[in-house]
Amino acid sequence: MANEVLTTNIKHLLGSLVAQGVHEFVVSPGSRTTPFALLLAEMQHVRDDVRVTVDVDERSAAFFALGMAKTMHQPVALLATSGTATANYLPAMMEAHVSHVPLIALTTDRPAELQAIGAPQTVNQTNLYGDNIKDFGAVEMQDAHADVTRYIDYRVQQMVVTAVTAPAGPVQINLPLRKPLMPDLGATWPAVVAQHIITGQTRADWQTVQGIAALLRDKRAMVLSGPDEMTWDATQFERLADHFKLPILADVLSGVRPSDHAINGIDALLEADVLADDLVPEVVIRFGGTPVSARVVAWLRAKDVQVIQVGQNAAGHDHSRQAEITVAVDEMGLIADLLAEPGSDSVAFLARWQTVKTTLTKTIASTDMTEVALPLAMTSLPTDSQLFVANSMPIRDMDNYFMPTRTIRVMANRGANGIDGTVSTAFGMAMTGKPTTFLTGDLTLFHDMNGLMMAHQAQLDMTIVVVNNQGGGIFSFLPQAAAKAFFEPMFGTPLPFEIADVAKLYHADYELVADQARLRELLAQPAQGLRLLEVKSNREANVAEHDALLAKLREAFHG
Amino acid sequence: MANEVLTTNIKHLLGSLVAQGVHEFVVSPGSRTTPFALLLAEMQHVRDDVRVTVDVDERSAAFFALGMAKTMHQPVALLATSGTATANYLPAMMEAHVSHVPLIALTTDRPAELQAIGAPQTVNQTNLYGDNIKDFGAVEMQDAHADVTRYIDYRVQQMVVTAVTAPAGPVQINLPLRKPLMPDLGATWPAVVAQHIITGQTRADWQTVQGIAALLRDKRAMVLSGPDEMTWDATQFERLADHFKLPILADVLSGVRPSDHAINGIDALLEADVLADDLVPEVVIRFGGTPVSARVVAWLRAKDVQVIQVGQNAAGHDHSRQAEITVAVDEMGLIADLLAEPGSDSVAFLARWQTVKTTLTKTIASTDMTEVALPLAMTSLPTDSQLFVANSMPIRDMDNYFMPTRTIRVMANRGANGIDGTVSTAFGMAMTGKPTTFLTGDLTLFHDMNGLMMAHQAQLDMTIVVVNNQGGGIFSFLPQAAAKAFFEPMFGTPLPFEIADVAKLYHADYELVADQARLRELLAQPAQGLRLLEVKSNREANVAEHDALLAKLREAFHG
Repeated sequence: MANEVLTTNIKHLLGSLVAQGVHEFVVSPGSRTTPFALLLAEMQHVRDDVRVTVDVDERSAAFFALGMAKTMHQPVALLATSGTATANYLPAMMEAHVSHVPLIALTTDRPAELQAIGAPQTVNQTNLYGDNIKDFGAVEMQDAHADVTRYIDYRVQQMVVTAVTAPAGPVQINLPLRKPLMPDLGATWPAVVAQHIITGQTRADWQTVQGIAALLRDKRAMVLSGPDEMTWDATQFERLADHFKLPILADVLSGVRPSDHAINGIDALLEADVLADDLVPEVVIRFGGTPVSARVVAWLRAKDVQVIQVGQNAAGHDHSRQAEITVAVDEMGLIADLLAEPGSDSVAFLARWQTVKTTLTKTIASTDMTEVALPLAMTSLPTDSQLFVANSMPIRDMDNYFMPTRTIRVMANRGANGIDGTVSTAFGMAMTGKPTTFLTGDLTLFHDMNGLMMAHQAQLDMTIVVVNNQGGGIFSFLPQAAAKAFFEPMFGTPLPFEIADVAKLYHADYELVADQARLRELLAQPAQGLRLLEVKSNREANVAEHDALLAKLREAFHG
Repeated sequence: MANEVLTTNIKHLLGSLVAQGVHEFVVSPGSRTTPFALLLAEMQHVRDDVRVTVDVDERSAAFFALGMAKTMHQPVALLATSGTATANYLPAMMEAHVSHVPLIALTTDRPAELQAIGAPQTVNQTNLYGDNIKDFGAVEMQDAHADVTRYIDYRVQQMVVTAVTAPAGPVQINLPLRKPLMPDLGATWPAVVAQHIITGQTRADWQTVQGIAALLRDKRAMVLSGPDEMTWDATQFERLADHFKLPILADVLSGVRPSDHAINGIDALLEADVLADDLVPEVVIRFGGTPVSARVVAWLRAKDVQVIQVGQNAAGHDHSRQAEITVAVDEMGLIADLLAEPGSDSVAFLARWQTVKTTLTKTIASTDMTEVALPLAMTSLPTDSQLFVANSMPIRDMDNYFMPTRTIRVMANRGANGIDGTVSTAFGMAMTGKPTTFLTGDLTLFHDMNGLMMAHQAQLDMTIVVVNNQGGGIFSFLPQAAAKAFFEPMFGTPLPFEIADVAKLYHADYELVADQARLRELLAQPAQGLRLLEVKSNREANVAEHDALLAKLREAFHG
């Protein structure tokens, strides 16, 4: 046993992670990670509830883990070597912190005696992610003291519990290691006793439940379900809406679409200014994160609607500052409580909103415009398939125009809203094994092109629909589009390469898709391996098409 | 004047940066950056000492700026939009902090009234880079109070001075902005008065100078010149060595090669164990950062050599803990002082080392082995050309075997030693307009493949020599190579694509180079645009070839 202490302590650390529900590990190779990587490989070999995936680019790896954690509803561990490797996790840690995803960053480090004296690849990794994590801990791996092993078991399990407890979020475990780093392979694995930490659930008191039920029953009330990717059972929203006869302003990331009560397109309807006064609610019960639609929160404030905000993750997260009542309790618990109260039979308000939805659906169905038509085509995806959507224009169009008739899981990195790491997040989502599609613009694809590597590395199937508008499409909607002299070099940023060549580099199937019918046909069939479907667009034409659609909406509602 | 306060304050900020010597700006487009980006474009248009370069991937952008700052010896400013975009700067900030490079990160932010209440793309950007910067400041851009503009002028100039003062390092200026963001274009630019801040220079007292001079004159003394990319005039080392007849253990990143006094290959000589006892110095005067050679510092300790460590950046940076005397003064100042003292005529020790060098040079000249031969081929680069070297194997081989006969500027990211961001750093180096070559392995190329975009974006010429050993070559030299079952998936990480396809994607010239003669021929001619030269290698064969070379060295010295 050449390296017994290190080997035993690492096994306790890994065993503690598994004991608290960490079954997925994403490793970026390096020298300092050696003992962890080898023992992870051995652990994967000896037990079947552990999976290790290698992603060489740490920025990509962290977003890949983010996609897994969000989709699988479980904590995912990351392993990086010392130095700038660990810094590459920050963008995804930031997103995980804002969207409450339990990532466990294991950052190997140089030992204490090499800190701050010019040793190579040695940086200060203590509290590296600052305010973007819930907890930081350093665990000693090479101390033979009897307390150390027990501390590892206790502290590591505690940190995983911290990460998954609402509001969930990432943690960092820093691991200083001195050479020699080779672990003893083939030795016995110690049993790690799982701590049973019951964190409980925050529920509303009965007066609050009764008060909210009365408002939902007696007022013109709506649900606003914002993004939530980790904690909800979306069918409960349908039951709540049915019980009180409520329309649901269902964010595309709420998981609540499809539903008879779900309304889409609120941002377009508000932009077109086609909503009659009798569609304004008196009360809105709001769940989840900040909606994709910027206009809907502004509208609630402008109309002085009474907003009740519900949820533990999103408590206080109302940048319209409109919510009068914040109910910081478990959402599913509150819905269960509300369902036990008397409901409502009055369907008039709901019916008016359903008519709006019908008119909207009819109007957009008649369009064959490129970017707007993409959300319609996405409804052809198979039942139970998954769809990851890039930020900027794709998520906005999807929020307005995507209303599937079957269950299609839609996700985005809608916390910090970065354009970084999206390819990797989509591939992380694909680790469930379900058919997965990624809808993106060309610029966002470029930002995380390294993520495409995971198709080969983890043997994943994926369809990527690339809307190629030659650069940053969203800027064409902003005031700077008027500054013509400086616009193209500073904002347009056209990419100098062909999507077909990207496909060739990564051995992907490729097709330039010219019409919506063909796109629907392709999307109905899940990809085998990696498939890139390019849809060409034009930034200026796209602005004109969006404007034309708004005009059609005005005509449909008022004409 | 729709947005006069914002426009005026931004002009003061930009003017203050220029007043303190910031002439290069690297911009990653985004919505929140709009007023800065447009006014930067206007500033570039109206004055000829400002250059703005766009790099859409913020991780790449920061390393690109790092490469510029290191090569041009001046501070470089970065501009990012709010959210995870800013987090992507961390890897390069970390490297800049360790290698003392003055990067000025301008991070635009959401306004204070949107913090922590769930507004989209809003994260805590205060002190985002933690201990990896020298100073953090937040500057208000939309306050019309008379003190604010003066504060901007003062504070921003002060922060640039902080960044460039030894030990130099990065700073972050956070810029909260509320809408509307469109600046007034075409208005007058205010004059910004440059503060003249004389930071002075730390010099040694005369007793110290005389004491060191006596040691160099009377003992078997050597110079160890470690990496330094920012502050040195390398010709002074030659003068110092000539004055006291000193051999220089010249790190490949010291800038001291070529020189009659410079010795290369110290790591290989120590590994082969061919150095006779009479080559061991009594005294070493050490300059610069931690040497590429890990063995040289261990050797000095094992032989109990008296080490005098000199420098402001590297004071206390001796992870061998061998230095008895640390002289934390300006290096060039100390050399000037030493040159004023009496020198030495005794050339015996220097001559013995020069014989070692001759034997080494002859031995390696007879090799035609792939990876080892690359440093020899690199000596064919044109005079005054630049060479950026990736970490891991390439920098180690270069440190051992590269001894040019003309001035070739060699750089690497040898602070935190990451494999991230190297392509971008090389392109930043190419911004000088001098012929630039980048020597890298395939895995490092992959990690920052997005950096290749800058060939088109900034119209840069670049030759990239890719040693394709299908993954992480260095791991084959480490103990884990013995763990065959787990090695390939966990460490080998072969890339699933062809370098020729990378070249096609980025419209680069491509050639698979089979022999050293052809490589020399190609390297002698600077690239027009982007050129990828692939040299195929094999990880296991490379280990064997390194071993064979060590055997040849033993034979040459002892045989």
